[in-house]
Order: sequence, then C-alpha cells, then structure tokens
Amino acid sequence: MSLPQRFHWEKLADFCESVFRKAGVPTETAQIVAQSLVEADLRGVDSHGVVRTDIYLRRLEAGRIQPLAEPSVISEGPGFTLLDGNNNFGAYVGMKALRTALDRAKAGGIGIVGVKGSNHFGTGAFYALQAIREDMILMVMSNASQTMPPTGGIRPFIGTNPLCVGVPAGAEQPFVLDMATSVVARGKIIVAAQKGEPIPLGWAIDKDGNPTTDAQAALEGSVLPVGGAKGYAISMVIDILSGVLTGAGYGQYVNNMYENWNEDQNVGHFFMAIDIQRFIPLPFFKGRMDDYIRSLKAEPKAPGVPEILIPGELEHRQSERRKQYGIELPLKVAEELHGIGLRYGVSLLDAAMPD
Amino acid sequence: MSLPQRFHWEKLADFCESVFRKAGVPTETAQIVAQSLVEADLRGVDSHGVVRTDIYLRRLEAGRIQPLAEPSVISEGPGFTLLDGNNNFGAYVGMKALRTALDRAKAGGIGIVGVKGSNHFGTGAFYALQAIREDMILMVMSNASQTMPPTGGIRPFIGTNPLCVGVPAGAEQPFVLDMATSVVARGKIIVAAQKGEPIPLGWAIDKDGNPTTDAQAALEGSVLPVGGAKGYAISMVIDILSGVLTGAGYGQYVNNMYENWNEDQNVGHFFMAIDIQRFIPLPFFKGRMDDYIRSLKAEPKAPGVPEILIPGELEHRQSERRKQYGIELPLKVAEELHGIGLRYGVSLLDAAMPD
Repeated sequence: MSLPQRFHWEKLADFCESVFRKAGVPTETAQIVAQSLVEADLRGVDSHGVVRTDIYLRRLEAGRIQPLAEPSVISEGPGFTLLDGNNNFGAYVGMKALRTALDRAKAGGIGIVGVKGSNHFGTGAFYALQAIREDMILMVMSNASQTMPPTGGIRPFIGTNPLCVGVPAGAEQPFVLDMATSVVARGKIIVAAQKGEPIPLGWAIDKDGNPTTDAQAALEGSVLPVGGAKGYAISMVIDILSGVLTGAGYGQYVNNMYENWNEDQNVGHFFMAIDIQRFIPLPFFKGRMDDYIRSLKAEPKAPGVPEILIPGELEHRQSERRKQYGIELPLKVAEELHGIGLRYGVSLLDAAMPD
Repeated sequence: MSLPQRFHWEKLADFCESVFRKAGVPTETAQIVAQSLVEADLRGVDSHGVVRTDIYLRRLEAGRIQPLAEPSVISEGPGFTLLDGNNNFGAYVGMKALRTALDRAKAGGIGIVGVKGSNHFGTGAFYALQAIREDMILMVMSNASQTMPPTGGIRPFIGTNPLCVGVPAGAEQPFVLDMATSVVARGKIIVAAQKGEPIPLGWAIDKDGNPTTDAQAALEGSVLPVGGAKGYAISMVIDILSGVLTGAGYGQYVNNMYENWNEDQNVGHFFMAIDIQRFIPLPFFKGRMDDYIRSLKAEPKAPGVPEILIPGELEHRQSERRKQYGIELPLKVAEELHGIGLRYGVSLLDAAMPD
C-alpha cells in the first residue's frame, strides 16, 4: 500500500493531538501543540510543521518535557511578567506568555513577558496571528540552540534566534514578519537534507568553516547570520532579551533538542504586546496601516518582479490554498507520522484527503 | 592661513553649543544637540557628527525647528507615554522620551515611549549609553525619510530606519548595537560623496535601479536594505512602531530635512526601557552578560580575523582614542564649521588641538 501524502489540515491536527494525548499530554496542551505545528504547515513553513512531531514526542518520552507542569511567575510589575515555563512544551508555555502579555496590555497599554525554562515554541507567527485577532501589536523573540558563528568565528555559538512582529491592518492583510536571524532558517536546510537537495552558496559553512552547498555538511557546520555583523548583532539582542535577562539558557547554555538528552532545553522567550487603541484610535491606526501597505504595493517594480510583497502576504495565501487543497508532506515525513500513529493506535490515514 | 582639522571634543561641543545658543536655542537644548553630535564623532560615526551642524542650523533658521517648544503628552498609561515633540530638535525630544522611558521603567519595570512630531535625533547610541549608565536596557528606533526601496522596488520608499539596543555588562564593555537597516548607513555614502570616494558595489542602486559605485549617484538613487527582504521587513517594523503607531510620518510622509523646506520632518521614534533588576538581580545579570561576551570573544577565529567583536566595542575604543587625540574633521567640514562660526561670532579655532 502506498501512503497518502496530502492531508486535511484540521484532521492532521486531530491526528497530532490524539498522539500527544495518548502519550500523556493533557488535552488543552495537546491541542495547542498540534495547532502550532499544523499552522506552520498551512503557512508553508514546513520546517516548523508536523515534521517536528517526532522530536517533540521523543523529548516527551525521554522525560525531557514535563506536560503537566504549569508555568509559574518569578517576578512581575504592572507592565511585565517573568515566567518559568517549568519545562512544559514550548507552544504551551508560549501561549501562557502570550495570554499574559495580551492581558497586561489590555489593562495598561503594554505587556512584556520574559520566559525561562521553555522548549522550542514553534513559529512566532502562531502567537502573532492570535494577537492580531485581538487588535494588538505583538513582538516575539526566542533564543535557540547553537547554529551560527559570531562574525569572524567558524563554529556555531548563537542560535538562528527568530524575530516575529505582527501588526493588524484594516482591509489589508496584517503585517506578519517571522524570520530567523540567519540567511535562511535552519529548518529549511533540514528539509533540504531530508529531500537530498543542495543548498545555495552563502547559506552556511561546513564544520571546518568552508562555504558549502551540501545540506548535510551545513547541518554539521554553521548557518550564517543574515547581513553579516548586523544579523549576528540582532541575534545577540534576542539572546540577551530572551535568555540573559530571563534566567533561561543563552549561547552555549540553550540545549539542542536533537542532541542533548541529559538536560532540559531551557529555551527563553520575550513577548511584547501593545494595545494600539491606548496610543491612538484603532480605526485611525488601521487606516494608516492600509495606506502604508497599499502605497508600498503600488511602488514601481524592478524588471521581472511581478509584485511588491508585504511580510506575511505569501504565507497568508499559502494558508488559504492549503486549507482548501490540503497539506502535502514529503513521503519520509508521512512515513514517520504513520509509524508514530501505529505506535500510539491513531491512524494517519484518517487525515488523508481524497485524490 | 590653513584651517586646523583636529579638535578637542569638549571644546568642539562648546563651539556647537555656542552657535546654537546664538541662533536662539535655549542653553539646555543647545547642550544636548551639541553633545549628541560630538558623541557621534567620538565613536567614529562621523556621518552623524558635527557634519550635521549646518543642516540643523539651516532648518532652525528656516523656522522648520521650534527650539522653544516643549514635548507634550498625547496619551499615557502605567507603562507607556505617547509624546508629541512639537517639532523641537530631535535630540532634545529624544532626551525627553528617554527620561520618560527610564522613569517609567524605574517605577514599574517597563517604559515604552512613542514619539511623533520630532526631527532627526542623531544616533541611537547617544540615548542607549545614558540608559546603560542607569543600569537599564534600552531599545530605540526611529524612522527616517525615504532612502530604500522595498524588496522588488526601484526607488526610495522607506528610510534606513535605525535600530539601537544598549545593554549594560559588568566588567566588560556594554553591548551597544546601533545600526541602520540598510547595508550601510546612508551617512557613510554622504561622507564618501563629500570625500569624492567610490562606494562598494551592493550598497546602493542609482536612480534608474542599476547597481552603482558612484557615491553621488547612490545618493540620487536608493540605499539597499541589509539582508534583502529581511532588512526591508525590519525597516517596516521600525516605521510602524515609530510612525504608524505614534501619529508621526511614515514612508512617504517623513519629510527629508535636506530637501523639504515647506514642511516639518514629523519624524517618529520608539523607546523601550527595561529595568533589569525588576526581572532578575542586577549582579546576576551583569555576571551573565560578562560570561556571554567573554565566551563569544574566546571563540575560534577564521583565518585572518584578529578578534571576535561585540557590537559597540570598536566604537568604545574609538571614543577613548578620540578623547585623547582629538576629533579629526575633513577639511570641507572644518571649513563649513569655520564659516558658521564667523557668521555667529564664535571661533572654531578655539576648539583646535595643538599639533
């Protein structure tokens, strides 16, 4: 029997949720983690999609994630909270941080939440899109395990620490920037390695510091920061706010979820929510965002450029498409999920879309 | 008589302050503006140094800066303030915003200040270094007039909107990132044009969208965003937080200080101050910063790289050097300042250092 490769997004989320529940994760947490993965697939960020189910489960099974732990408050003030995720799933901890930031912003205009003791929290856009639905601006950062050298260095020291900013618009699609501070997300190199495809020169160096187009060699080496010293510096900022300031790991102390099975990851995050209407009237703001986006899109284009794009625009279109036509998974990923399903008595086939 | 070109930093600041005072600027404001300019020169950011005295003065003389206007509060909450700079000097408005952000952070842990109705505010580092002296983390952004195309565009639409983050350390020098979101600061191209020097390929395109090494052609064209679409997106974030959210100009509505003499600039800024000790104990934080910086600097280096650098390190050394040996100005800049001095009855020669 050949395995299907195209799946219905909601049913795929149900599949992941069921697997996590059967592995001992409370329903709400299992739902959040599953949604965070499938939403990444919907938006075309396959590197952060259901492909991560396996590693999340393995961390859980190895006792390196505590699915029953509730995040606790370390310190707080009128505009901020410092949370300890107590090593629950990153997406669950992230949702708690998001809710706290949004509630604080609603109460006082601004909500900042630092987080220690967390794990890989998926994509920042998962949180930003929820904030946007509540007419909030959200900035989210997270540190990550070592993958990039400092400028002038030759081996991984800092993570491809992601920066995400979500801003609601009016009639236009919201602004959603969600970027790694590397030239490309390391997840894209993982996907290339899984597909056996080469990567462009300039994305990474091998373990000896030489430029490489071999995805596997790149994974064993270092991803390069975007824009050289500037990307390195922004990645440091994210590490400082998410890690040094919160008491989480930073630099070499953020543990690799694929390689370190003796220690918790101790990932740190930094959330900033802004209640727009406390600054200026919301309709005025949304009108300005629409005008800004429309003016940008109306700019004259370089030859061969079909369209000026706003961050998040392609991902939004991809999401609409995949909700309708399904999420296509590489055979290797489908096989892996199928195996996980067999192990936990949940059928991946139920999530398949008819051809 | 040949004009001296090497100046004592404090005397150079006195010169600028005197000129501004004689042009009708109150003493405190004149001091702040002069300090902001000279501190940029000290740190080697010549593009934002006393070379800007002329344009600031010309805006003032043309009635396009209101040196007596006090910034006013538009809206506020426990963790934030929205200010109208009422078109005073950017550095004066920026200092007011900084003080407000620091005071709010001291009171509640977090201080966010949005600003509309401002002007060019100098370097972000000027504010960050002051926050660092008070053991605060500061993030500062400002929008700027149109100089970069969106990705896929061919003419200037967004500014090289700068991002600055300052973080105190313990025994180590503080972390001070102060970057334009372009490949290089436009000011560097201005300096190259003044010196008649070419610029590297990749910094800019000419007015027809072609790559150029001609600094003058670049100034007539567009500076390129750092890291392609990522720099474009970060520049948009800064424009949204500094401009769209505050009621200041954004995109095409931030007026060029060199070209638009009929309208105020309406620059916007965004300040975020964090009182570290409200999150975790200050000595613990500083120890972690020192460890982070030392670990980075101890990383193995690529061939030909003498040293791994931390953002702000070179600028700090340059500042120490220039405090001792003086600030050297290009002849053209010295001549311009000398002319200004003659006009206002202040002698630039008094600021010269003996050979």
